[in-house]
Amino acid sequence: MGRVTERRKVIRIRDGAVSSRPDTLVAEEPLEIRLNGKPLAITMRTPGDDFALAAGFLVSEGVLGAASDLQNIVYCAGATAEGSNTYNVVDVRTAPGVVLPDITLERNVYTTSSCGLCGKASLDAVRTTARWPIADTPPLQVSPELLAGLPDRLRAAQRVFDRTGGLHAAALFSEDGELLDIREDVGRHNAVDKLVGRALQSGDLPLSRTVLLVSGRASFELAQKAVMAGIPVLAAVSAPSSLAVDLAAETGLTLVGFLRGSSMNVYAGEHRIALRATAPQG
Amino acid sequence: MGRVTERRKVIRIRDGAVSSRPDTLVAEEPLEIRLNGKPLAITMRTPGDDFALAAGFLVSEGVLGAASDLQNIVYCAGATAEGSNTYNVVDVRTAPGVVLPDITLERNVYTTSSCGLCGKASLDAVRTTARWPIADTPPLQVSPELLAGLPDRLRAAQRVFDRTGGLHAAALFSEDGELLDIREDVGRHNAVDKLVGRALQSGDLPLSRTVLLVSGRASFELAQKAVMAGIPVLAAVSAPSSLAVDLAAETGLTLVGFLRGSSMNVYAGEHRIALRATAPQG
Repeated sequence: MGRVTERRKVIRIRDGAVSSRPDTLVAEEPLEIRLNGKPLAITMRTPGDDFALAAGFLVSEGVLGAASDLQNIVYCAGATAEGSNTYNVVDVRTAPGVVLPDITLERNVYTTSSCGLCGKASLDAVRTTARWPIADTPPLQVSPELLAGLPDRLRAAQRVFDRTGGLHAAALFSEDGELLDIREDVGRHNAVDKLVGRALQSGDLPLSRTVLLVSGRASFELAQKAVMAGIPVLAAVSAPSSLAVDLAAETGLTLVGFLRGSSMNVYAGEHRIALRATAPQG
Repeated sequence: MGRVTERRKVIRIRDGAVSSRPDTLVAEEPLEIRLNGKPLAITMRTPGDDFALAAGFLVSEGVLGAASDLQNIVYCAGATAEGSNTYNVVDVRTAPGVVLPDITLERNVYTTSSCGLCGKASLDAVRTTARWPIADTPPLQVSPELLAGLPDRLRAAQRVFDRTGGLHAAALFSEDGELLDIREDVGRHNAVDKLVGRALQSGDLPLSRTVLLVSGRASFELAQKAVMAGIPVLAAVSAPSSLAVDLAAETGLTLVGFLRGSSMNVYAGEHRIALRATAPQG
């Protein structure tokens, strides 16, 4: 975890006054994820929790669904010119019997021979690769008051943000509002992958009784990751996109946006929000 | 441009009061970019300026450097089940003689057979693919006062943000602070690609006398896009990452972060900041 932040010289300008001092920055390095020895993807991430990141990425891709799908994860060592290990390449080995995706160039796109690529195709892709439906029985119920308290607890638990201002955070809460885990990363999708990967390693998938809170906006990609992990509630401090809302509506995910103070917008899955506890309108 | 925003029903909760109303969301749809008919990449973007996005993406990849490198760009039509055009697949045809990248699976990763992947390799990759050095002769000079005024002008020019809260913005300014162009997108990297692609189409590359302002953080990827377009100054409202600072220092890019009010941090390339106009320290 020594590389989560790095120090660089910075020239500060404040109301015309100029000074020079060391500054703490969030560390960003590439991570290559290999699957059984074959390069699969590269992501720019904050070092740390790399095995969890790789595992969570493969949950989102529909490759892994349980700790038993995993044989092991190793740093790929030794092949630099100097023979050193950069700790920026991980190889995920799957257990015998795990169905692997067809790793061709075309796997990076949803369709290979048609021009039918559209939001609908993106929704279909999530539906066909999802391991579990979002199945919280009985349905999880969270009150607006509980949700309203989560962003402050996320911020209080963020360790690096205050020093660098450069990290996104994702946190997993129980249905009672207990903080279960929090991850920070230069990329919001990486922070979520790290949470989900840790849950896989702990045998906690699907995360069917949890609330996922992200520090910024809710894109299609984040909604997809929540659905693939079986998480029933995704809450974001900022705005969702149209396709994130469509995916939530289609899969039964509860999607909350603009979660600020005692205010929030519910875009889908409102049956999990305990509205009856609120004051009458007006 | 009709799909930049979409309307969805939302349940608003404000201090315990619950109401339902239509809400305006930023549109997000996948775009598949093909190069001479072959699928190259897919990005989740806000529809609009798709040809510019594709062209700018290929500038960042080192494929295109001038409008003359481009034969044409078309929407790929007709191959859905219903024979319709989703306007989500573009094919970029290059002019004869343009050197194409080796489009294999491995093009998605910096190294194929070694484990040497690291920040240094990322910096090397930008250096070897860059078409131009950052060559502003005489060096561009911008005052802290000029830079301090840019975020307000970016915000004033943002059309969609106020309605949705969900868009990133990137704006290009002249060295005198004149707003040259502004693009908004659900992805910050897409907004920059759209700016750069339009400049390519207009014959304005390299953008050697401009300042690029982005609404959020400065990642390695954004610094890379600035360098590949020959932009000498990248300013961000929020924090940079360590690797963005390293790339800026290595390529001569001026990198400004935390540009807020009359305050800013200069992380690299301070020779372009006219500090002598400022008041003495203390």
